[in-house]
Amino acid sequence: MTRTIKLAVIPGDGIGPEVIEQANRVLDAALAGGEVALDRTEFKLGADRFLETGDTLPEAEQAAIAEHDAILFGAVGGVPGDPRLKNANIERGLLLKLRFDFEHYANVRPCTLFPGVESTLKQPGDVDFVVVREGTEGPYAGNGGRLRPGTPAEVATEVSVNTAFGIERVVRYAFETAQSRPRKKLTWVHKTNVLVHAGATWQRIVQTVAAEYPEIAVDYMHVDAATIFMVQDPSRFDVIVTDNLFGDILTDLAGAIGGGIGLAASGNINPDGTFPSMFEPVHGSAPDIAGQQKADPTAAILSAALMLDHLGLTADGDRVRAAVRADLATRGAATRPTAEIGDAVIAQLPQ
Amino acid sequence: MTRTIKLAVIPGDGIGPEVIEQANRVLDAALAGGEVALDRTEFKLGADRFLETGDTLPEAEQAAIAEHDAILFGAVGGVPGDPRLKNANIERGLLLKLRFDFEHYANVRPCTLFPGVESTLKQPGDVDFVVVREGTEGPYAGNGGRLRPGTPAEVATEVSVNTAFGIERVVRYAFETAQSRPRKKLTWVHKTNVLVHAGATWQRIVQTVAAEYPEIAVDYMHVDAATIFMVQDPSRFDVIVTDNLFGDILTDLAGAIGGGIGLAASGNINPDGTFPSMFEPVHGSAPDIAGQQKADPTAAILSAALMLDHLGLTADGDRVRAAVRADLATRGAATRPTAEIGDAVIAQLPQ
Ligand SMILES: CC(C)[C@H](C(=O)O)[C@@H](O)C(=O)O
Ligand SMILES: CC(C)[C@H](C(=O)O)[C@@H](O)C(=O)O
Repeated sequence: MTRTIKLAVIPGDGIGPEVIEQANRVLDAALAGGEVALDRTEFKLGADRFLETGDTLPEAEQAAIAEHDAILFGAVGGVPGDPRLKNANIERGLLLKLRFDFEHYANVRPCTLFPGVESTLKQPGDVDFVVVREGTEGPYAGNGGRLRPGTPAEVATEVSVNTAFGIERVVRYAFETAQSRPRKKLTWVHKTNVLVHAGATWQRIVQTVAAEYPEIAVDYMHVDAATIFMVQDPSRFDVIVTDNLFGDILTDLAGAIGGGIGLAASGNINPDGTFPSMFEPVHGSAPDIAGQQKADPTAAILSAALMLDHLGLTADGDRVRAAVRADLATRGAATRPTAEIGDAVIAQLPQ
Repeated sequence: MTRTIKLAVIPGDGIGPEVIEQANRVLDAALAGGEVALDRTEFKLGADRFLETGDTLPEAEQAAIAEHDAILFGAVGGVPGDPRLKNANIERGLLLKLRFDFEHYANVRPCTLFPGVESTLKQPGDVDFVVVREGTEGPYAGNGGRLRPGTPAEVATEVSVNTAFGIERVVRYAFETAQSRPRKKLTWVHKTNVLVHAGATWQRIVQTVAAEYPEIAVDYMHVDAATIFMVQDPSRFDVIVTDNLFGDILTDLAGAIGGGIGLAASGNINPDGTFPSMFEPVHGSAPDIAGQQKADPTAAILSAALMLDHLGLTADGDRVRAAVRADLATRGAATRPTAEIGDAVIAQLPQ
């Protein structure tokens, strides 16, 4: 009996389509001959779509996407400074709208330095941690405005909104993640000495949830200090949980020390299953290298592997990761044409 | 005729007093036999003072500090988790209060990888940039609160307040800084795609001020991307200007890649001269190693050099930097007792 998975694919802009093409090829190869069939629907959304039709995320398309079991997302964003995109905000109107409306509250971003991959650090040590970034509130709430814009008396505000509801669910998810890992360590990151209100709420909730997980060793770090540890001793991290903005910053840094942003995968997870989760490389659309087969599809492929895990196909997810690992071990994160990396990963897939 | 400089010294907590002691010794040695005399007043402020008297920054003391020409600041903060400090916020009540009340709007943090110093990066290249961090507003405004604290319906907000007034003065200072440097490059860092309100105000002001500085090459980077460049290609930076929180994060990271936070100096500058500027190492009070002569006083010594520059004693500032450079070139950033590093720098002072 075949299980059919309804997959919404949003390749997006720039290098998005190229890397998603390879992720799709790897998915097909990994699932070939098995009991699982992928039923894909492609949604053309992003800056290119906006330029053609003026749409960012039409309601009907959002509703159609919501009917799928999972979303595979490339990258969105036009050429920086394109005047035609001046009044578009693809990031907020599409990517963040999906994360918020689909309650992707656990933005999961693993960081592993694979054997064979050069780190930018002299002595990286054993890098293998995962950042659980809050995905639906905090400084990303979109709450704020401008008073007297364009005048010398202009004031702009950005309101970070942090709820016990929103924090508790992601903190709980992070504790569960730590529980499932051998080292059982959780580091929560904030800036409690300055952002005292949000910091106090985070602290209260971490402490409350921690009481339910006595096996987990919990520590706290200010976000500034966390960047230092990230480049001086990243092996000290196991699971990190943090807010939306700190998570954004720390995961790009983590990508850089983990062999480059071309390898960094992510899952925007809705653990409750009320909406489809969304899997995307951490990198952006990189319009400067688009269409040239220069982009590394590994991040997209590893994101697809996270999707397999999420769909309960962990054995297949493990096979994809094993193939990536084998490819990197032999070739390193060398510059190769996009499709060649897809070929190589497929060739390495264990039976 | 002797010029007397009134110097307020706030050694603070933990390793603060140890590193400030060495900075003071170097200052005395650098100015010995010259026309400038230092008239010091020490202010015992910080967590230790709070524990003794319950005071954070009494009004009369703040007024007395304001009467000085400059402030030399060590580090403040007690042992993390000390229950007696639960209701103290030394950071907000003392350090940030001084920065805000004294209009330290240009928080200047140079990052130089000195010859002889090991970087945590494999190929750091030529690291020599300066971060100009806004110091008086943004997410540090202290504006926010908690609704229904301690309940499942708790909401905490943090309001980032950004004014044209506050942004323009620091942006202008950063352009002046870039103008004075050979490479004439300015990178402004924000997160305009998400924090659209504050981002728009920053963008408008950077563009307006840029028009007055046609020689300066200006580029923009999202804060997450900036962390990647910081560890992959830091030599691309010359002057960075950014908001209070992004500046906090980026300068700790910069410290780490520039040979460690034990070398990172800073000046909290009031360019208008209406209040004394304040010079402090970027590192914290590190209570775990306090009183053991383990702290590196180099950051405090380099902060004192920035103070000399600010007081118009650039030749003396240069001599202190030359001495530090010579010491690091021969000894590296090796672990030596605090006072021994002070001795070594004094021995290297050019006549
Ligand atoms: C494109 C942008 C809105 C996004 C974010 O800030 O979350 C990106 O940087 C990421 O990390 O996925
Ligand atoms: C101690 C703290 C309030 C301070 C800050 O966040 O500005 C420190 O991290 C710094 O960078 O000087």
